[in-house]
Amino acid sequence: MKFNLPKAIEVLTRTPTVLETLLQGLSEEWIFQNEGEETWSPYDVMGHLIHGEKADWIERMEIILSDGPNKAFKPFDRFAQFEESKGKNLAQLLAEFKTLRQQNLTTLQSKKIDAVALTKKGIHPAFGEVTLEHLLATWVAHDLGHLAQIARVMAKQYSNEVGPWKEYLPILHK
Amino acid sequence: MKFNLPKAIEVLTRTPTVLETLLQGLSEEWIFQNEGEETWSPYDVMGHLIHGEKADWIERMEIILSDGPNKAFKPFDRFAQFEESKGKNLAQLLAEFKTLRQQNLTTLQSKKIDAVALTKKGIHPAFGEVTLEHLLATWVAHDLGHLAQIARVMAKQYSNEVGPWKEYLPILHK
Repeated sequence: MKFNLPKAIEVLTRTPTVLETLLQGLSEEWIFQNEGEETWSPYDVMGHLIHGEKADWIERMEIILSDGPNKAFKPFDRFAQFEESKGKNLAQLLAEFKTLRQQNLTTLQSKKIDAVALTKKGIHPAFGEVTLEHLLATWVAHDLGHLAQIARVMAKQYSNEVGPWKEYLPILHK
Repeated sequence: MKFNLPKAIEVLTRTPTVLETLLQGLSEEWIFQNEGEETWSPYDVMGHLIHGEKADWIERMEIILSDGPNKAFKPFDRFAQFEESKGKNLAQLLAEFKTLRQQNLTTLQSKKIDAVALTKKGIHPAFGEVTLEHLLATWVAHDLGHLAQIARVMAKQYSNEVGPWKEYLPILHK
């Protein structure tokens, strides 16, 4: 599937509602359990997605599209949510993510992103030159990856409860 | 997390709406692409979930709870959707799944499922004795597994488009 901005936006637009539909009002065990030490719960993932809306996608897009000479991205903090989510409940995180995503999609759609713009570049702290197309495709794949992660973390809460069916459920072996 | 029927129902109730929110109205490429030969597209997964509502969960629950002597489950056809979905569009599959799931949850909730009922047994064609608790926990984990699968199949459509970010996206390596 070739990258296409309207089709990418189809997914980016849905993610907040999909996560809200999946998580809003669930019992705390579904929300706060993880896959074991150093892994994330659905609640942790929501905080990470929020930090991405604040410090990653749009900030990096602006760097790529700017006329300035400095094209280097700041490193992204993958653990920011453990501070930033403190004192917030899941409903607050879902609402915050939805608002930030809407604002960011408005910003994205206010830019003239044509085929030339998609080839413009920024400098990633780990692997160097990346294009705007790479960044926007990654935004989509990152959403979907974390949706899959949340579903997996929830499924794993029943790893023992499924009994011998565990063998038939690949999600419990990932 | 110990199995608990109301908490299982929390997830089972949401699945049709989560899938509708994720898939309804998406471009055909998102719906019909898969992960390569012998793998399933989101459209295929929807047909498989429908077949489960018709021929798996409730039918097997009724066998377990019945007073009859024959506790053997029929084998489940993992490929039924390739015939059954023919001529249907995705919106029809989403609607059919939602209706069947609602009916099945009504049936489930009409039974008196207490701690004793959860220990009752049926005979699985491949691995023998399983309990009602195993079956119901598997219903939940199966939903979540296929939600994760749909998200993964969609993410993989951008495996090349993400450029060097592929290294940072575990979902593209599963």
